[in-house]
Amino acid sequence: MTEIAIPAGSPFGTDNLPYGVFSTPGTEPRVGVRVADSVVDLAVVLGDAVFARPTLNAFMAQGYDRWVEVRRRITEVVTGVLPDEAVHAVGDVTLHLPVDIADYVDFYASEHHATNLGRLFRPDSAPLMPNWKHLPVGYHGRAGSVVVSGTDIVRPCGQRKAPGDPAPVFGPSTRLDIEAELGFLVGTGSPLGSSLTADDFGRHVFGAVVVNDWSARDIQAWEYVPLGPNLGKSFATSISPWVVPLLALEGARVPTPEQDPAPLPYLAETRPWGLDVDLAVEWNGEVVTRPPYRSMYWSPAQMLAHLTINGAPARTGDLFASGTVSGPDKDQRGAFIELTWGGREPVTVAGEPRTFLLDGDEVAISATAPGAGGGRIGFGEVRGRILPATQAHR
Amino acid sequence: MTEIAIPAGSPFGTDNLPYGVFSTPGTEPRVGVRVADSVVDLAVVLGDAVFARPTLNAFMAQGYDRWVEVRRRITEVVTGVLPDEAVHAVGDVTLHLPVDIADYVDFYASEHHATNLGRLFRPDSAPLMPNWKHLPVGYHGRAGSVVVSGTDIVRPCGQRKAPGDPAPVFGPSTRLDIEAELGFLVGTGSPLGSSLTADDFGRHVFGAVVVNDWSARDIQAWEYVPLGPNLGKSFATSISPWVVPLLALEGARVPTPEQDPAPLPYLAETRPWGLDVDLAVEWNGEVVTRPPYRSMYWSPAQMLAHLTINGAPARTGDLFASGTVSGPDKDQRGAFIELTWGGREPVTVAGEPRTFLLDGDEVAISATAPGAGGGRIGFGEVRGRILPATQAHR
Repeated sequence: MTEIAIPAGSPFGTDNLPYGVFSTPGTEPRVGVRVADSVVDLAVVLGDAVFARPTLNAFMAQGYDRWVEVRRRITEVVTGVLPDEAVHAVGDVTLHLPVDIADYVDFYASEHHATNLGRLFRPDSAPLMPNWKHLPVGYHGRAGSVVVSGTDIVRPCGQRKAPGDPAPVFGPSTRLDIEAELGFLVGTGSPLGSSLTADDFGRHVFGAVVVNDWSARDIQAWEYVPLGPNLGKSFATSISPWVVPLLALEGARVPTPEQDPAPLPYLAETRPWGLDVDLAVEWNGEVVTRPPYRSMYWSPAQMLAHLTINGAPARTGDLFASGTVSGPDKDQRGAFIELTWGGREPVTVAGEPRTFLLDGDEVAISATAPGAGGGRIGFGEVRGRILPATQAHR
Repeated sequence: MTEIAIPAGSPFGTDNLPYGVFSTPGTEPRVGVRVADSVVDLAVVLGDAVFARPTLNAFMAQGYDRWVEVRRRITEVVTGVLPDEAVHAVGDVTLHLPVDIADYVDFYASEHHATNLGRLFRPDSAPLMPNWKHLPVGYHGRAGSVVVSGTDIVRPCGQRKAPGDPAPVFGPSTRLDIEAELGFLVGTGSPLGSSLTADDFGRHVFGAVVVNDWSARDIQAWEYVPLGPNLGKSFATSISPWVVPLLALEGARVPTPEQDPAPLPYLAETRPWGLDVDLAVEWNGEVVTRPPYRSMYWSPAQMLAHLTINGAPARTGDLFASGTVSGPDKDQRGAFIELTWGGREPVTVAGEPRTFLLDGDEVAISATAPGAGGGRIGFGEVRGRILPATQAHR
C-alpha cells in the first residue's frame, strides 16, 4: 500500500487534481489524476469503468453533478492509503491526448495581441477591426491536428509570397511561430438549434489546458484573405496532457478588463470568468515571455455564449482556445511575431539573436494560477520540438 | 424472395450504387445501398458486420481495394434474387447522417462565385484576391453542425451591422441564404506530418454528396474580418443521405478549366478531377438555378493535396466541400445572394419576388452526372426547411 506525500507548495496538491490519460508499458491508455509527482489510476481506486477508457470524453459527458461528486471522492481517496498498483510515478507513464476533440475553435480574445497582429499584418489600416470590441472573433481550426504535449512538430511546407515577390513560392515555412493560449473543453454541450449562455460556462465546461497554436506566419499571411487562416495553422496544435478542472479554478476567477462598449445582452455575464492565470514560454529552456491571462478582453464564458448563439451545437470534447495571450508589456507577448516585432527585433536565446523557430528548437509553455487553498496550482506544460520539413520535395 | 426491377433510365441503377445509413421502425441504423427505389440492407446480403454499424466510417476505413471488391459483389447480388428482409422501399426507411464527420473544410473553388462574392462584399476592391488563382482558398467549418437532408434549419440569430448603422444589433438573420456545393468524404487519410497528392484522390476519397452550406449573409458580413466566416455558417450544413462512390463517377471526369497561371507542382494532377455534375436548386418546389460543377476552377483532388501539403492529417470521415458552385450565367449561380445580386434583383418564386429565405421556405438541391453505362446517375437531393428563430429573446 502507498501514501502519496504532497510537498508543501506542490502545484499538484488536492486543490488541483487535474485529469489525464496515461499508460504504463504494456497497458492500455486510461484515465488518471495527478497528485504531486504521482499519477493515480482512477479505474482502480474508484472501481468505475468510465475511467478505463482511453479518453476523458465519457466521463466529461456525465455532467457537472458527477464531476463534483468524483472530485470529492478523489480528494478523500488520494489523501489516504492506496493500493500500490494504483499509483505510478509521473516519470514512468506515457501521457496521451486526454480528449477526443470534437470541434476546435480558436478565438482572438487579447486586445494587445489583436492590435499587434493588426499592425504587423495590415500596417496601412486601423489595427483593430470594427467588429473586435463587439464580439469575440474566432475561427474553426483542424480538430484532427490537435496533439498532446511532447509530439514533435514537423516544419510545415506551403505557399508564401512576400509583398514584393512576383509570384508565390513553395517550400518550408521560414517564419514558424508559436501562440501561447489557454483552451477550454466542453463537457456537456447543447443540441442543434439551441444555445448556451455565459452563465452556463461553469456547468458545461469541464476543464482547461495550455495550448500552443503553432503558426506559420508566411503561409498564413498569403492565404488568409478572405476566409481566414487555414494551412498556416492546421499542421499542428499542441495541448498540455493535464486537464485542470474548472472546479479547481474558482480561486483564479477575476473580472475581465472593462468592456467598452458594453457587449450585447447575449454576451453578458453575471460574474465574469476572467482568469488570473500566469503563462510562461520557454524557448530552448529559457523563459522569453510571461503572458498574463488576466489581461484577456473576452472571457471564455463569453466565447461559449457566442459560439452557440446561432444555434450551433456544442458537443462533448469541443475545444475552444483563447487565442494568443499577450499582455501590455513587450515581455508579456505570447507569440514570437509580436515579441520580435515581425522578426525585426530579435530576442536573445542562449546568447544568440533569435526571431522565428529553427529546426531542433523546443518550446514549452507552462501556466499556474491561484488555488483555492492559498497556494498556486499548475497546469503543467505543453512542449514541442521542431523537426525539419519532410514535404519540401513536392 | 425479391428481385429489384430497375426501370430504364433510373438514376439509381447498377452504375451508381450509392451508400447510405437507414433504419426501419424499431431497428437500429445500418448501412444500405440504394438500387432504383429500394434500399438493400448490406449486413444481410453480404453478411459482414461492418455494415451493421450506424455510420459508413468503418467500411470507408477499410480502403480502396475493399471498396472495389464490395462494389463488385453488390453489383452481382442486387441483380439477383434477394431475401425479402434485405429489401426496403426507400419511402419506408429513415435516412441518417451517413458518416461521422471528422473535420469539415469548405473551399471556394468557383471563380464565378468568388468573383461575385468579392463584388458584393468588397465593392471597392478587386473582386478576386491575389492568392485565389494560386491556391484553393478554404476554411474549416463546424463538423458538429453537419446534418442530414431533411433536418429542419432554425433561423440563426446573431450580430449584424449595416455599413451606415452606428452599432451592431442582435436578432434573427434577415439575409438567410444557401450555397449549392458538392462535398467529398475521405475514406483513408494520412498521418500527421505527411501529405497526399492530387493523384492520391481516387484511392483515398470514398465518395461524394450534395451539400447545402446554409449562410447568414448579414452575420457573415460583420464577423468575417480578419479570421473568416464563423457564426454566419456554423449553425448548419446539410448533406444528402446517399454517398455516391467515387468509383461511380469515372464517367463524369472532365478536365478542369484552364488554370492560368499554372499551379505550383504540389497542385499538379496527372489527369484532372473536374466533374461533369449538374446541380439544380429548387426553392419551394421551383427550380431557380442550375449550377454546373464542370465550371469549377479547382478540382477536389487539388483541394485534397492542398489540405495536407502542410502535414495536416487527413482522417476517415473528413468532409471537404467545393464551395458554392456558380457558372458564368445568372441562372447558374449557386447562392441566392448572387442570384438576386445582394437582394437587389429578386427572382420570382410562385409568382412572388423573392431574395433571401423566409420562415417556412424549403430548399432542395439535387445533382446528376453521366454514369459509366451511358445514362445518368443521381445523387438524390439535400433538402431543408427554415423554422423561425428560437434565440431572438437573448
